[in-house]
Amino acid sequence: MEQVKNGKLGVADAVEKLRQLPFEDIGFACIDHHRQLRCGLPEVIFCPGKTTEQIIQIFQRLAERGGNVLATRAEPAVFEALSKKIPQAHYEPLARAITLEQKKSEPSKHAIPIITAGTADLPVASEAKVTAEIMGQRTELISDVGVAGLHRLFGHLPKIQNANCLIVVAGMEGALASVVGGLVSCPVIAVPTSIGYGASFNGVAALLTMLNSCAANVSVVNIDAGFSAGVVATLINQKIESAESGLK
Amino acid sequence: MEQVKNGKLGVADAVEKLRQLPFEDIGFACIDHHRQLRCGLPEVIFCPGKTTEQIIQIFQRLAERGGNVLATRAEPAVFEALSKKIPQAHYEPLARAITLEQKKSEPSKHAIPIITAGTADLPVASEAKVTAEIMGQRTELISDVGVAGLHRLFGHLPKIQNANCLIVVAGMEGALASVVGGLVSCPVIAVPTSIGYGASFNGVAALLTMLNSCAANVSVVNIDAGFSAGVVATLINQKIESAESGLK
Amino acid sequence: MEQVKNGKLGVADAVEKLRQLPFEDIGFACIDHHRQLRCGLPEVIFCPGKTTEQIIQIFQRLAERGGNVLATRAEPAVFEALSKKIPQAHYEPLARAITLEQKKSEPSKHAIPIITAGTADLPVASEAKVTAEIMGQRTELISDVGVAGLHRLFGHLPKIQNANCLIVVAGMEGALASVVGGLVSCPVIAVPTSIGYGASFNGVAALLTMLNSCAANVSVVNIDAGFSAGVVATLINQKIESAESGLK
Amino acid sequence: MEQVKNGKLGVADAVEKLRQLPFEDIGFACIDHHRQLRCGLPEVIFCPGKTTEQIIQIFQRLAERGGNVLATRAEPAVFEALSKKIPQAHYEPLARAITLEQKKSEPSKHAIPIITAGTADLPVASEAKVTAEIMGQRTELISDVGVAGLHRLFGHLPKIQNANCLIVVAGMEGALASVVGGLVSCPVIAVPTSIGYGASFNGVAALLTMLNSCAANVSVVNIDAGFSAGVVATLINQKIESAESGLK
Amino acid sequence: MEQVKNGKLGVADAVEKLRQLPFEDIGFACIDHHRQLRCGLPEVIFCPGKTTEQIIQIFQRLAERGGNVLATRAEPAVFEALSKKIPQAHYEPLARAITLEQKKSEPSKHAIPIITAGTADLPVASEAKVTAEIMGQRTELISDVGVAGLHRLFGHLPKIQNANCLIVVAGMEGALASVVGGLVSCPVIAVPTSIGYGASFNGVAALLTMLNSCAANVSVVNIDAGFSAGVVATLINQKIESAESGLK
Amino acid sequence: MEQVKNGKLGVADAVEKLRQLPFEDIGFACIDHHRQLRCGLPEVIFCPGKTTEQIIQIFQRLAERGGNVLATRAEPAVFEALSKKIPQAHYEPLARAITLEQKKSEPSKHAIPIITAGTADLPVASEAKVTAEIMGQRTELISDVGVAGLHRLFGHLPKIQNANCLIVVAGMEGALASVVGGLVSCPVIAVPTSIGYGASFNGVAALLTMLNSCAANVSVVNIDAGFSAGVVATLINQKIESAESGLK
Amino acid sequence: MEQVKNGKLGVADAVEKLRQLPFEDIGFACIDHHRQLRCGLPEVIFCPGKTTEQIIQIFQRLAERGGNVLATRAEPAVFEALSKKIPQAHYEPLARAITLEQKKSEPSKHAIPIITAGTADLPVASEAKVTAEIMGQRTELISDVGVAGLHRLFGHLPKIQNANCLIVVAGMEGALASVVGGLVSCPVIAVPTSIGYGASFNGVAALLTMLNSCAANVSVVNIDAGFSAGVVATLINQKIESAESGLK
Amino acid sequence: MEQVKNGKLGVADAVEKLRQLPFEDIGFACIDHHRQLRCGLPEVIFCPGKTTEQIIQIFQRLAERGGNVLATRAEPAVFEALSKKIPQAHYEPLARAITLEQKKSEPSKHAIPIITAGTADLPVASEAKVTAEIMGQRTELISDVGVAGLHRLFGHLPKIQNANCLIVVAGMEGALASVVGGLVSCPVIAVPTSIGYGASFNGVAALLTMLNSCAANVSVVNIDAGFSAGVVATLINQKIESAESGLK
Repeated sequence: MEQVKNGKLGVADAVEKLRQLPFEDIGFACIDHHRQLRCGLPEVIFCPGKTTEQIIQIFQRLAERGGNVLATRAEPAVFEALSKKIPQAHYEPLARAITLEQKKSEPSKHAIPIITAGTADLPVASEAKVTAEIMGQRTELISDVGVAGLHRLFGHLPKIQNANCLIVVAGMEGALASVVGGLVSCPVIAVPTSIGYGASFNGVAALLTMLNSCAANVSVVNIDAGFSAGVVATLINQKIESAESGLK
Repeated sequence: MEQVKNGKLGVADAVEKLRQLPFEDIGFACIDHHRQLRCGLPEVIFCPGKTTEQIIQIFQRLAERGGNVLATRAEPAVFEALSKKIPQAHYEPLARAITLEQKKSEPSKHAIPIITAGTADLPVASEAKVTAEIMGQRTELISDVGVAGLHRLFGHLPKIQNANCLIVVAGMEGALASVVGGLVSCPVIAVPTSIGYGASFNGVAALLTMLNSCAANVSVVNIDAGFSAGVVATLINQKIESAESGLK
Repeated sequence: MEQVKNGKLGVADAVEKLRQLPFEDIGFACIDHHRQLRCGLPEVIFCPGKTTEQIIQIFQRLAERGGNVLATRAEPAVFEALSKKIPQAHYEPLARAITLEQKKSEPSKHAIPIITAGTADLPVASEAKVTAEIMGQRTELISDVGVAGLHRLFGHLPKIQNANCLIVVAGMEGALASVVGGLVSCPVIAVPTSIGYGASFNGVAALLTMLNSCAANVSVVNIDAGFSAGVVATLINQKIESAESGLK
Repeated sequence: MEQVKNGKLGVADAVEKLRQLPFEDIGFACIDHHRQLRCGLPEVIFCPGKTTEQIIQIFQRLAERGGNVLATRAEPAVFEALSKKIPQAHYEPLARAITLEQKKSEPSKHAIPIITAGTADLPVASEAKVTAEIMGQRTELISDVGVAGLHRLFGHLPKIQNANCLIVVAGMEGALASVVGGLVSCPVIAVPTSIGYGASFNGVAALLTMLNSCAANVSVVNIDAGFSAGVVATLINQKIESAESGLK
Repeated sequence: MEQVKNGKLGVADAVEKLRQLPFEDIGFACIDHHRQLRCGLPEVIFCPGKTTEQIIQIFQRLAERGGNVLATRAEPAVFEALSKKIPQAHYEPLARAITLEQKKSEPSKHAIPIITAGTADLPVASEAKVTAEIMGQRTELISDVGVAGLHRLFGHLPKIQNANCLIVVAGMEGALASVVGGLVSCPVIAVPTSIGYGASFNGVAALLTMLNSCAANVSVVNIDAGFSAGVVATLINQKIESAESGLK
Repeated sequence: MEQVKNGKLGVADAVEKLRQLPFEDIGFACIDHHRQLRCGLPEVIFCPGKTTEQIIQIFQRLAERGGNVLATRAEPAVFEALSKKIPQAHYEPLARAITLEQKKSEPSKHAIPIITAGTADLPVASEAKVTAEIMGQRTELISDVGVAGLHRLFGHLPKIQNANCLIVVAGMEGALASVVGGLVSCPVIAVPTSIGYGASFNGVAALLTMLNSCAANVSVVNIDAGFSAGVVATLINQKIESAESGLK
Repeated sequence: MEQVKNGKLGVADAVEKLRQLPFEDIGFACIDHHRQLRCGLPEVIFCPGKTTEQIIQIFQRLAERGGNVLATRAEPAVFEALSKKIPQAHYEPLARAITLEQKKSEPSKHAIPIITAGTADLPVASEAKVTAEIMGQRTELISDVGVAGLHRLFGHLPKIQNANCLIVVAGMEGALASVVGGLVSCPVIAVPTSIGYGASFNGVAALLTMLNSCAANVSVVNIDAGFSAGVVATLINQKIESAESGLK
Repeated sequence: MEQVKNGKLGVADAVEKLRQLPFEDIGFACIDHHRQLRCGLPEVIFCPGKTTEQIIQIFQRLAERGGNVLATRAEPAVFEALSKKIPQAHYEPLARAITLEQKKSEPSKHAIPIITAGTADLPVASEAKVTAEIMGQRTELISDVGVAGLHRLFGHLPKIQNANCLIVVAGMEGALASVVGGLVSCPVIAVPTSIGYGASFNGVAALLTMLNSCAANVSVVNIDAGFSAGVVATLINQKIESAESGLK
């Protein structure tokens, strides 16, 4: 039959791969165990909307698999309850992140710079940092270098111009992403934050600024999505480093 | 009576001033003849929503008073019709502005820099320029120095750091206003433009960026409002120059 | 080379200036010490999103430089903690502003009128007032003269018609800025406030009103941005006064 | 049964009235013949989205009933085609309204003032005027008295302070409704128009201004809804006049 | 001079009237004493954004004038404090309104029906009711007759079809205003409420529904603005009744 | 009369039916007793905006009629108070629903699958489940099978491909509805949830995704409207099952 | 392995089904041939954004398979070009739909009522009608029965109360869906249309009204999505009718 | 001085680099010649808002430098005029892109897959393709594999799972980005397109979907920003390939 696509065999193979992916259904959650196998992604729990009990139960199942575990946006009370069951877990209060590092990887050769416009953007930057680090990346935090005082940014130019990729975290008008984007030749992951007031509309102003960046090397993640930025930057850095080491 | 405010006499005086302001009712328009007397503002016609006939008729009445006249957002066809009646009128196509200069004033001592992020912002910048010039200001257009290539802006630093006030015109992400605001110590009038696409939302992104500017010396006018920016900058420059010359 | 721009030398100079600007990196914040030198701007801390500890630490560093310090949007608890370390600091509860005045400047000759539409707009007006005053300006608060009772505004006409520039603070429909703008020939800095309910959308209605003002001498700052309005008005008034005194 | 409401008889009567209302189904439209009987409302056709043929056919059916007919937002081409079939129909180009007056009523004793902020608001004001007039009202158009030049409005104060109700038509920032509302003690029907640009968002700015009016006697109709304003004002004026003449 | 408008004398008179309006400046508030004289409007305080002390102080000044006073959106704690100073004041908890009735007027002949779509709309309806009543109107509350069960509305048809004007209060989809508007021939004042969830956007859905009503006798006030609806309805009813009694 | 529609008799009959529908006016609420008679809908109370006292009183009246009663979005404290009066009432905390099952119906033959993208969507899914079950439906909850791990969904394909209709509950980007819609040939009721952060805008992102679904068998209810989804799915399933059993 | 889910076999089967679905890649489009096999859905082309040549080529491929073909939102010029290649194709101008009926199915026993609020909603209603009909459904169009004249709707009550499901098409305020939803006990598919002006925001007002419907049997499709409504209603009606005939 | 930062020397160096960047001021545009030198970025012109004359003039200056030139969003008429001056320029009509390839680079080893949800997304995908190709990348276009027919996507799984990074282009609900993101372990650049109607709001729905993607490896560019996606993907692929070849 001529209407049947040639690549059919490929489909079967691909689907077969999908089908055999391990996951585990614990009633209220389907735990996905194949992510870590594939690309070093930790097992991740997004806490809001889940009860403390659900979070602990999912965390335990993930921990049993032996890999690293990350729970984002966890309130202190959640960690307090969880640490009684899993005492090795660690809490980073600024990032509101719980981590369990069971597999230490060699730290990455290149550090990922994480640049913030203001001090108030630190919690989001911190989430990106924790995320990248639990995935084996070195990071370098460059804080409070917003565009109203460009000279503060210039002190860090050498560092940011040598990076494989950059994370820029900014609220209010979010202009830092464009300025940094114009100064470097690597991909810039921009994270708008909900810092600001009035017409910042909880981060919408910064989000729009970044989406409309006249620097074409900028791509954007959700408002306050430090986690996503950490993942995207890690994936880029990992691929480059494994290419360098010929492991790819 | 103790409830009556002391300043009453002042009220009477002020109201008296208001009452005696000359205006002229020509049926569809109330022409306001006192603005020019007061502060050198030209008589101004905002063309959209008016018929060509209405525009010409208002323009003629204003012209008869002997002052300068400015019509903004005038389509070429409007000018063509109008120039048959008022041959001395001039058309600036980029700004879509018709001007009639009947009273030449001494050009201002300080020039007002008008800075654009991109070439596409020129029409709005041009409206600001025409407006300031018909009010007697010298202007200096600095074009296409957007934040994705900061070095282009730096060539103009001396000029912009000596100005009494600045106009910054930018679309897309509008970050130029914040960057310029951080480099100078004078008031910056920011004009968002509708240049851009997608999430620029016809200038909303640039507007929000400018309103949320982390540089506190930035104030903002409406999207594409080159005219307003020209007026505000002129008023500031005029007041400083008349203070300098002791005329105030 | 003909492609090389003439102004190059100027670039070098300007960049040199930027490069030598003093700042201080204390880990979570890059403190910018050159603003006050340049134009009398106080050192300013925007408190939201910063921990009390961070605020105190930044405040102390700024205070050590000997200039005036302003912390905006500071909750009473922040002041309470801070005043133990810096007993000379002063708190203005309505404005939620902490000030430390270490350098008294001669009060400005012209007062800046700050006009509010309603009593509920006072906190924002108060922030503008505190900001302008710590920068050496005299201010005059004209409160509760919204457009639903125009006669209340008329009592103040003489004062507002003699000002170098005006601040108008209004929530709800924000129409006061246009009305005042039509009565004066100086720049009007309009501050929309989040006062109102329903379709005021936390100040968006007032913001849009002001941006669309048919009075062309109105420029706008962010919703509730009393601080920005205070800065812009101060810069205008300062420039005019130094021109008058020939100090410019 | 005790759960059955007492007012039942009233329901039956009311429903009976509804049931007997005459209407006529011509396939694509259900023509409603009872409105005119009830309160002097003309038969009305809202033209957008209807084909010229549909408009003519509905207009003819309505005309056959002998009352007055009004078609709003009719393009000139529609009128041209319609006037061949119904030569007595009249077209008001500014309002884009077609009228057929078959029943002349005594003109109302009180005129309804229709006040516009600018010349560009005239088409919407005109629709309100045509609507009120075909319903037997006298109107008085007061044009171009926007808040940037309050003295133009003051010339009309006696007229507007004696009205039974007022229509205020304004685009851009729409502040005129609040100012007028504060000067009178009758209901004000505010009509925002789509006149403006940039952050006027096709009338949204004016709409929000009017909804948030600090003058409590203001109620609002849809953007550009001259027709609705004309109807509401007519109903108020009619009721007062019939009370005066004891006909009610 | 031919440019001077004829109506000038009228201007002087009108301005004279404005000028002599009594008001009282107590620092943070300009109290407007002429409203009650003119049209029976009570003195009104909108509480949000004012401190308890400010509210009490304004309330006392207003009370001293001898007329009726109304404070809207007053929290119970405000009333508790106020009632110690003014024991005759009354609190309506559902409406969150404080009233002081010092001048009893004859209740109106016609009652104003206030119709709600659901039980949750009662607080807003209650504010309208309190407002109308302190201005001397009789009201009739018809509750919970939303469009999902039309038969509940039909029981009240006789009452609503005889009214001079109607208030319709509805949240969620706000369709009740259109349905009622289609059943009556008097003006309908529609009040959207913030009742609902999800895509009701705190009353925006109901607001848009009402603004787009296909019933042309509907005009709209702000979301939750029971007070405005009460004022507009009162003004209409008052004018009709005074016409009836020949007092106008 | 030829203009009178033929179907008139039908109108009379229909109106007669409407007129005789039982309802009960208890002052603040009009209780509608005919819904359950008609189609098995339980009596339902939407709790937000009602006082606990009002909820209990309405619940009691409904319970007296002998059918099933459902109260949605009831806080635990409401249930606590209510259960003292009606001890047989049951509370489902996840769904925040109170149920009183007085009439047990035969469970439906076909189960309605309720599919959630994530664990945090369970409360909304739970409301749909409780709603469908009190109306006699069997349901099957398939949880946490979002599109970022499609293999988790594939394990449930047989179940979902045999259903009469499906409910899909998803927050964040809401893509699950489109994916499921493409895999089945029955109607899919999509429920966006307010789960997410930043640019999810409390469910708006998921709502828009679902409304724009490229799968044409998807229709959408309000954000978090588990109740509506439960009702629509029940009505579809009921009609099919009664057709199967020839009862229709 | 205990982590492996039981339903695995089902997965394999389901995936196998997916894998074998016929589709055809013609470079710019992947034509999906399995939809019709599954549930009688016609092959459908959404025309906007496709060139006339692409549309014709896809249409021809679909036609060769022998089933019915539907192209929605096709401009007349597209049909003109297409009909030269496929002369049996039919064009419904109001719906802008091209149909090719190659397989006549028995018309459905129950008609699907399609109810419009106004004449201007007919194009969208027409798209729903064409869609349902090419899928074998009988439809009944009930036009122009909007809520401002409820008596027009009542004439059709018997028809709409006997339907298996209903489509309601309405623009402007979209209230018809709630009113109809309250009168029937079957699922109502609501289609908001972009008919209206001003604050209708091209259908957003109607969309929000329908999403917030207080009638719980209403679900909603995209603005102007007559096609989706036709599909959803068809699926419901088909399932009920095949249950009735025991074919399911 | 202890307040002076250590990294100062680095600042000087970095600033020096900035200062020496070549650019060329041709009056209306500042042409930036250093981008290509740095990272292989072509010289790029964004055409909207520029006159044909401006575009040609900028294009010629860029071409004289000998590198590759790209003009995006160029209307056919622009190309027609330009090709008379620069006959070697090439036009890609679907992408509306003009290219001038003067420097052929070795094509990249890895192809960048560009995946579209529908045929109508091809213009945007095409812009991404042209952009990546002029920067030396091989691309692979996978078209029309939207989520309503997942089996079409599965045929391409092997290709997309081996890529270094992916571009996903989708309008309407934009769900494809999340689905693809969940199937791969490389960065996904998501491009929302303005394809759709109604509540797609010209691409906003797809934009929000992608920003809220539950797949954390997705980052987003502006609506219709094929160019930005092409740049970001190229930068990632280039860095990986130069790492592989040890050239970095």
